[in-house]
Amino acid sequence: MGITVVTETELRALVHLDEEALAAIADGFSALVTSQVTLPPIMRIDVPDQQGEVDVKAAYVAGAERFAVKIAGGFWENPQRYNLPSSSGQMIILSARTGRCEAILLDNGYLTDVRTALAGAVVMRHLAPQKVRTVGQVGAGAQGRYQTRALQLVRSFERVLIYDRDEARLDAYVHEMPQVLGVAVVKAASVEELVRNSDVVTTSTPSQQPFVRAEWLHAGQHLTAMGADAEHKQELFPEVLGRAHLVVCDRQSQCARLGELHHALDAGVLTENSEVHELGEITAGLHPGRTSAEQITVADLTGVGVQDTAISLLALARAVAAGAGLDIGD
Amino acid sequence: MGITVVTETELRALVHLDEEALAAIADGFSALVTSQVTLPPIMRIDVPDQQGEVDVKAAYVAGAERFAVKIAGGFWENPQRYNLPSSSGQMIILSARTGRCEAILLDNGYLTDVRTALAGAVVMRHLAPQKVRTVGQVGAGAQGRYQTRALQLVRSFERVLIYDRDEARLDAYVHEMPQVLGVAVVKAASVEELVRNSDVVTTSTPSQQPFVRAEWLHAGQHLTAMGADAEHKQELFPEVLGRAHLVVCDRQSQCARLGELHHALDAGVLTENSEVHELGEITAGLHPGRTSAEQITVADLTGVGVQDTAISLLALARAVAAGAGLDIGD
Repeated sequence: MGITVVTETELRALVHLDEEALAAIADGFSALVTSQVTLPPIMRIDVPDQQGEVDVKAAYVAGAERFAVKIAGGFWENPQRYNLPSSSGQMIILSARTGRCEAILLDNGYLTDVRTALAGAVVMRHLAPQKVRTVGQVGAGAQGRYQTRALQLVRSFERVLIYDRDEARLDAYVHEMPQVLGVAVVKAASVEELVRNSDVVTTSTPSQQPFVRAEWLHAGQHLTAMGADAEHKQELFPEVLGRAHLVVCDRQSQCARLGELHHALDAGVLTENSEVHELGEITAGLHPGRTSAEQITVADLTGVGVQDTAISLLALARAVAAGAGLDIGD
Repeated sequence: MGITVVTETELRALVHLDEEALAAIADGFSALVTSQVTLPPIMRIDVPDQQGEVDVKAAYVAGAERFAVKIAGGFWENPQRYNLPSSSGQMIILSARTGRCEAILLDNGYLTDVRTALAGAVVMRHLAPQKVRTVGQVGAGAQGRYQTRALQLVRSFERVLIYDRDEARLDAYVHEMPQVLGVAVVKAASVEELVRNSDVVTTSTPSQQPFVRAEWLHAGQHLTAMGADAEHKQELFPEVLGRAHLVVCDRQSQCARLGELHHALDAGVLTENSEVHELGEITAGLHPGRTSAEQITVADLTGVGVQDTAISLLALARAVAAGAGLDIGD
């Protein structure tokens, strides 16, 4: 009846941006629309006196043997105050037969980074134009690195245009990523320049003010916004969603509360009757995704518990197979 | 940066029904009304194909150094199917400075049992008549045992009347508890007989049908209902709350959704304008509790995250002081 505890070091050695992990995340989204899934609203615990918040996410896919509850912290002062990353987190894996804890993955947020990047790659597989020459990445943080790396699983591209308001972060990205990606990485002077000159764009910032304008988009372009995951966060002007031929959400009801869809609905650019599709419809083959080279497509990702359950169960399976982890408890 | 993992065996040796733990729980309730407390709604993850559910509770008291997130399972088929207890759970203790995990208490639900029993004792301290001869306990499960034991912290009594629909559970209780409590333990033939002949009553059942009628209550009696913690659960007929001179909730907004108060409001026996007090008002000295020997008082307990944070932090402090727990992680 012991509990397997797996450390971050072990998890980093076991779980990567690879095809199997990509398929696990895609299957998680498919389950959202093809299976009975218990997906409670995100629990958010604000720690206002520290400018911090802890989010709890969970998802149970009917018939699965186990599922994960993720506890993830975002404490934005950590780097300055404590020289610690702002993000942290751990995954608690429970038996769906008994409710008892079977494993704890002490990943400190690593698995969240991976599953978030893989969701971006799943979107790109189905919505990016077939031919991608230039990738635009807004946000040169950790997730900005994972996104371009994950994108290489589904498209080959020749260069990355990168933008960040923080010049030091931008310099570090340009210095570091050409070697990681094996392609050219070039600073964009502005978000406008980046959007106008990229085939696909990903935004992964904590912005509370929109910064992508609809008139910058061009035919055939795909844009994924993954920064907004709370009511007050926003990266896209609402008209961006209005201009898209296809709007895809990871979870429509959640995006209508916490994502870009929320602001588009508030602004009246979209209404409750507007056609919006869930990513799971596309991964499950119920919707074709992009159907022409000319379409403009936009994806709104807020992060869903099925991603955490999917990546956790993959990680645990690999840990068990590798004999990793420590057995503890009574 | 390691994480302290404490096992159930260690926690059972460290945490008991004692005065310090009772005070910690009372202080937790006081904080609910005197401090800024982040208390998100309970996250409930239903596992319908297994008749199971997992609840996540959390509370952060402003200024505290850490707080707990509790993940607790209730899988009612566990005893028959797997010879395991229906309840399980673990407490994840996070730093309120950084959001990072500091400790994991693998208590398998033990700390929940303790903090639930202590909440009952806090209520009894302030609402039970000074002189208690007979204690009525409806529900002969694990919590039915903890409740009568915790009650000895705040009142001395001569006998326990016990009722349970399950004859085998009833027999086991009567066999086991006289020695534990040092008082007589007598089967009641019915809930009515129990209520009519007890000075105080506690109900701790998973009932979905009310079973305590208002006309059975008598002057000076106190009744605590702690079974209902979900919309469909109910132990008291709504008129019981209508007959009380004082109705106390652990958390009024939560009881209005999940507890006995919910059904009293639905039935129109109480309204939004009815006088209802929170337990924290009483523990903080803002409300006197029982003010005469003749009053009928009723408490509705649904379980609040501050209890979990309070008992977890006490348990962690004792574990650290005793050198218990295993340090793990990177």
